[in-house]
Amino acid sequence: MKTGKEARLQIRKGKWSYPTSGIALGYTQANMVILPQKYAFDFFLFCHRNPKPCPILDVCEAGEYSPVLTTKDADIRKDLPKYRIYEHGILKEEVSDITNIWNDDMVTFLIGCSFTFENALIKEGIEIRHITENKNVPMYITNIECIPAGVFNGPMVVSMRPIKKELVEKAAEITGRYPKVHGRPVHIGNPSEIGINDIDCPDFGERLTINEDEVPVFWACGVTPQAALMRVKPEIAITHSPGHMFIMDIKDEELINL
Amino acid sequence: MKTGKEARLQIRKGKWSYPTSGIALGYTQANMVILPQKYAFDFFLFCHRNPKPCPILDVCEAGEYSPVLTTKDADIRKDLPKYRIYEHGILKEEVSDITNIWNDDMVTFLIGCSFTFENALIKEGIEIRHITENKNVPMYITNIECIPAGVFNGPMVVSMRPIKKELVEKAAEITGRYPKVHGRPVHIGNPSEIGINDIDCPDFGERLTINEDEVPVFWACGVTPQAALMRVKPEIAITHSPGHMFIMDIKDEELINL
Repeated sequence: MKTGKEARLQIRKGKWSYPTSGIALGYTQANMVILPQKYAFDFFLFCHRNPKPCPILDVCEAGEYSPVLTTKDADIRKDLPKYRIYEHGILKEEVSDITNIWNDDMVTFLIGCSFTFENALIKEGIEIRHITENKNVPMYITNIECIPAGVFNGPMVVSMRPIKKELVEKAAEITGRYPKVHGRPVHIGNPSEIGINDIDCPDFGERLTINEDEVPVFWACGVTPQAALMRVKPEIAITHSPGHMFIMDIKDEELINL
Repeated sequence: MKTGKEARLQIRKGKWSYPTSGIALGYTQANMVILPQKYAFDFFLFCHRNPKPCPILDVCEAGEYSPVLTTKDADIRKDLPKYRIYEHGILKEEVSDITNIWNDDMVTFLIGCSFTFENALIKEGIEIRHITENKNVPMYITNIECIPAGVFNGPMVVSMRPIKKELVEKAAEITGRYPKVHGRPVHIGNPSEIGINDIDCPDFGERLTINEDEVPVFWACGVTPQAALMRVKPEIAITHSPGHMFIMDIKDEELINL
């Protein structure tokens, strides 16, 4: 599975139902959110007003399942290995195909994912702790409020990666090249300054070892718009399952300075 | 009128009803489009899919008249020197205040304007012909189709500036720094390649002198989304009057590489 297209076809045929990290390397992977049309303008605006946690890569019209800007021949109803279906904000089911519940009222948003900048960091010799420890990245609800839009509001969620002191500026610079996948860190160092009381108790994901010569570095996280959405408790919402992303036809390198 | 705020207050008081070119220099000026809520998602998507002609700087919720990202204390119902009111795609009236026809169904879009990059070109010693000839910039309907979104579609409209051959690359590079105000040219040279049959007959604006040592250079133009909107013939739509822009609190320099 060397290209996004190859990967999507394998997934569509039911031959790959695992996390997508590391497959079709170099092709951009994205968070996905599907919601009823009546919430679509407010959600679009929420993302536009909060581009660091919610960088929009592509949006489909109601009923449309092929993202025209990035991945024209995809079928987002089948091309992700796992979906989560929420009713009134509560997880109801995890499935590998949503064709049977798809309808023409559904609007799809594809949002930048940290895989893009993690690959860039690794390429430049910066260790990504949750990968080496084989864990989920730790995520924290902060005291940084997003700019509200219509029915959507809430705090920014951040992900944390421990970085060696002497590499922090380099990591910030590298990720800053990718504004469409969260960009530069939103905070470096003292967790309590952004409302995180216990770095060892993430709100989502798993705790990581932070060594003495390392600093916790915090990036805006794509869980932010999902959390804002769930707070609204829409009658139905569908997302990718964590780590089971949508793989695009565009490449990470095309996102540099975009 | 040195700042955006000072300029807006003078305009709000009725003390400035002229074009805004050259006032509050350095502060970003924007195109404005107001439309009924039912068209808002499609229009947002049309702009997102066509960022060169339709670079969105700020969007207000229905009924909201202060743009939260760029110009929090503005009142877009009073802060532009002249507005155009369209009914079913037909210009009905030109007014200096829209408070009396404002309602909670109206959604406002603020879209980047070429004034920003023209100021940058002038600063770097590149002549802007329509300014020196005291004319409106010539604009042409091209054969480049925009990516449709919902009810919106149509050709890209471009503006043309004659540039000395040896300065064309420099002009392209300078304007490329400003992706949020149309960015690099969409075409350089032969007008017929983008469907322009007679460079001396622009579809909007006025013809300009093109000297022997000059090349016509074409940039995506903010008239594109207005033209797409008028084609839909909404019961009501309001725009700025040509040249009578909305002046923001953000500065042109903040838009570099944004």
